[in-house]
Amino acid sequence: MIETPSLVDQYCHGVLRTELGLGTFEAHLARTEGPPAAGTTLFDTQTGFAVRRWCPPLLGLEPHCPPARYLARRRELGVLEAGRRLLRGSGITTYLVDTGLPGDLTGPAEMASAGDAEAHEIVRLELLAEQVADTSGTVEAFLANLAESIHGAAAHAVAFTSLAGVRHGLALAPEPPGPGEVRGAAGRWLAGRRVGGALADPVLLRHLLWSAVASGRPIQLHAGLGEPGLRIDRTDPVLLTDFVRATAGLGTDLVLLHGYPYHRHAAHLAGVFPHVYADLGAALARTGARAVAVLAELLELAPFGKLLFSSGAHGLPELHVIGARLFREALSRVLGGWVSEGAWSLEDAQRVAEMIAAGNARRVYGLT
Amino acid sequence: MIETPSLVDQYCHGVLRTELGLGTFEAHLARTEGPPAAGTTLFDTQTGFAVRRWCPPLLGLEPHCPPARYLARRRELGVLEAGRRLLRGSGITTYLVDTGLPGDLTGPAEMASAGDAEAHEIVRLELLAEQVADTSGTVEAFLANLAESIHGAAAHAVAFTSLAGVRHGLALAPEPPGPGEVRGAAGRWLAGRRVGGALADPVLLRHLLWSAVASGRPIQLHAGLGEPGLRIDRTDPVLLTDFVRATAGLGTDLVLLHGYPYHRHAAHLAGVFPHVYADLGAALARTGARAVAVLAELLELAPFGKLLFSSGAHGLPELHVIGARLFREALSRVLGGWVSEGAWSLEDAQRVAEMIAAGNARRVYGLT
Amino acid sequence: MIETPSLVDQYCHGVLRTELGLGTFEAHLARTEGPPAAGTTLFDTQTGFAVRRWCPPLLGLEPHCPPARYLARRRELGVLEAGRRLLRGSGITTYLVDTGLPGDLTGPAEMASAGDAEAHEIVRLELLAEQVADTSGTVEAFLANLAESIHGAAAHAVAFTSLAGVRHGLALAPEPPGPGEVRGAAGRWLAGRRVGGALADPVLLRHLLWSAVASGRPIQLHAGLGEPGLRIDRTDPVLLTDFVRATAGLGTDLVLLHGYPYHRHAAHLAGVFPHVYADLGAALARTGARAVAVLAELLELAPFGKLLFSSGAHGLPELHVIGARLFREALSRVLGGWVSEGAWSLEDAQRVAEMIAAGNARRVYGLT
Repeated sequence: MIETPSLVDQYCHGVLRTELGLGTFEAHLARTEGPPAAGTTLFDTQTGFAVRRWCPPLLGLEPHCPPARYLARRRELGVLEAGRRLLRGSGITTYLVDTGLPGDLTGPAEMASAGDAEAHEIVRLELLAEQVADTSGTVEAFLANLAESIHGAAAHAVAFTSLAGVRHGLALAPEPPGPGEVRGAAGRWLAGRRVGGALADPVLLRHLLWSAVASGRPIQLHAGLGEPGLRIDRTDPVLLTDFVRATAGLGTDLVLLHGYPYHRHAAHLAGVFPHVYADLGAALARTGARAVAVLAELLELAPFGKLLFSSGAHGLPELHVIGARLFREALSRVLGGWVSEGAWSLEDAQRVAEMIAAGNARRVYGLT
Repeated sequence: MIETPSLVDQYCHGVLRTELGLGTFEAHLARTEGPPAAGTTLFDTQTGFAVRRWCPPLLGLEPHCPPARYLARRRELGVLEAGRRLLRGSGITTYLVDTGLPGDLTGPAEMASAGDAEAHEIVRLELLAEQVADTSGTVEAFLANLAESIHGAAAHAVAFTSLAGVRHGLALAPEPPGPGEVRGAAGRWLAGRRVGGALADPVLLRHLLWSAVASGRPIQLHAGLGEPGLRIDRTDPVLLTDFVRATAGLGTDLVLLHGYPYHRHAAHLAGVFPHVYADLGAALARTGARAVAVLAELLELAPFGKLLFSSGAHGLPELHVIGARLFREALSRVLGGWVSEGAWSLEDAQRVAEMIAAGNARRVYGLT
Repeated sequence: MIETPSLVDQYCHGVLRTELGLGTFEAHLARTEGPPAAGTTLFDTQTGFAVRRWCPPLLGLEPHCPPARYLARRRELGVLEAGRRLLRGSGITTYLVDTGLPGDLTGPAEMASAGDAEAHEIVRLELLAEQVADTSGTVEAFLANLAESIHGAAAHAVAFTSLAGVRHGLALAPEPPGPGEVRGAAGRWLAGRRVGGALADPVLLRHLLWSAVASGRPIQLHAGLGEPGLRIDRTDPVLLTDFVRATAGLGTDLVLLHGYPYHRHAAHLAGVFPHVYADLGAALARTGARAVAVLAELLELAPFGKLLFSSGAHGLPELHVIGARLFREALSRVLGGWVSEGAWSLEDAQRVAEMIAAGNARRVYGLT
């Protein structure tokens, strides 16, 4: 029996503070462009089935009970109490929270309190730039304020996260853009922008990445699964290879988030480059009963010191629960299977399990 | 025990009406460019082994008997009687038959009669255009007759199928071509064409697709595995993303055929877009003993209301048999496995099995 | 119980003749750009765990003993005796040895003697060209000497191997370069080259490939996993499709080495083209406890007469051992599983196992 008493969720978001109806709840079970097709529901997905398996017992119901009954019980308890029970039942002991998504979401302090856990902040680079743009009158002020903002964030956040893959695709020029190039791109972006406008300019995305590299904080890069807005092949982590090579030896770690369905490519990069790590959370939460197979695929090429658990959860504490439960069960079954067939020793399996569950993240993010 | 009493084969072809020798039979077991290598045979493939497993008992022989013995028994019964026994033994209750392949193949009515099942026609867009071209004297006549033909086909066929992926690759410009562009392309194609000449012009392929979109009938797009003539990466369904987005909300469903080895990409698109469905038949029939693994991969991201069984069979009723048997066994093992480990409830598993086997297809194609 | 009494390792290198410390040993467990990350070790990989599982018992130790203890025992025995015990314990009966890597490595004769096996040479095309360039004064002399060298190598080697995928990527123009093009490229390369300089010019890489095609000897092409210097997607075997089609029917077989993570694409090509074969060794040795899953994926589309075992080992006899042991165990488990569930007959499984282990290689390379 493989055990993981500590669990560092190295990439997640907060949970919604408002009571949820069935429709809003369902909408958080998948990332789609539009509602489910007529005659179908997003509960009939691996994520939906995983929620129905793991969450009802934490609220005193039978596993697999109907969605409507689960939602009724959730409202009966209230969003706060349900959230507390769910987060505390997840087994997560530390949350690293990306605070860059809109909506009425709990921050790291509330996650810590509700979940009886530790929590730290991850800063989303693009949001930082957008916020700085909202309050900077000139290109010079924007660039100076941005530098200061990144410097300030590096002092309190445990990591940066970059949406370059989602906003533009990962096929970015690998080298840092020159100062003139950055000024030009910033001028064009600021001139055409309304307050709150999103950053998708590739020169500025690269400028953000290289500013974060200079900070020394680990950078989490979205790859593979994630927002549905882009062609998924444009987020294949293999497209990052030259950027990865350009940042080797600079002392900043890169963490490839999600990865799936290109997770074997992420594992390959984690095997080839000392400063590259692969995340496995969201890929597990989205594939549910198949998490065991997806985890096993990641364990092919990735060195065991280079894999990091996360839930990738957003909005629903149920997603933190299934991320953690699916991970623990998958890890126990994959490693336990190798132990029972003699491929691994139990001692090694236990050691590797603790590395992936918490130890690797503690080392990368400097957690104590 | 998961059961699927109804089975809608949502994409197949008819069977050959002529007696077959060992060589012709073998040639239908795979899609190759040339004969098997010296010293090898196409019976030594997953498809060949699956045929030897499932089909001999339907003709009164032992499973896995040698190919020559099986073929002798087949000839002894005669092609008609053997076909009847095989199709009736497949468990398929409805055939959707693409009638667009050349050769002495049975049509939907004969499939229904031989298989004691229902059958409906799928119309191949490119063949329709080629037939119209054979009988139209001018560009104007061609385009008017084509429009009429598509309109007429939509009235009696349950779906259209497009070979754009095989003829050109799926990296087509996503928007409909303009009328002038279509006329120009039609003029060039008709001018250079002999009777029976195949359509591969990307503008005309897009024109066919958009004409079919306007008809409201579901469109089945070949992706991944299929005819061997093209680089397989050019049939990656991810290349369709922009076309898929351009057709969202228009009321026409898109079904991604085959998909393998890019089936996880097809499942992803089925998860993101309300009007996209993923087919799983041919991928199973071609991978035989591995069908259980391939089905499980499709069940990672695809919502359960978005997967459709098919056999993808062509020419040999044996291929309808193995498509259906492999599917049923794989489905039962994958879903049954999840039930026995507690990940799914038996009730949910049974419901999902019926959806994938028949219910989803009934809804998409408006079958009763 | 599936047995494979003969085992032809159709692609490997020699072993180091010198005693190894822990650091040098560890460096051979993976292909990385740089040392392992701080706090991690390359023993904590599937390859490392497989070495610790299979090799200690061959030197009289417990499986999974600590690396330091294993290395101490290895030094105690001496590099020669340890090598003898390991190679003889691998079960490999014939080694095909690529002699083109630098370093103090044993050649085919020493491999045969140490391993009590047969051994044959594989000639690396690029090294041949580089050696010829070192001793040729003019373009004309270079090209004439190169032709002679290839002709000579074809007389004694069992195969050629090409690094085109690693040096340039597999997206090469498919047709043979014209004589003027070759002379021009040779002139530019020789003019800019110092003694020992590596060949990466795409025209010359193609010239080497087509010269080898003309020789009739099988050509092994590196694809997928391999040297870490390139973006891995540029070694996707699908990129070879047009070259494969251009060489069809010429009588020369092509063997796609490694393939992983694009091994399903390699299997697809082996299924479509009579003269294409897929290698499975290195993919197994690098994925260790997952070898069973990777082998099963290769067995989806590849005809069983088209798969070839290899270890892909380089430098450490431990890597020959794990290549062979992982292969045999994976083969036995995959095929044995299909037998026990009734999908395959035992007789067929045994026959296929012998084909993949040795028979296919014997046929392709003309071994007796």
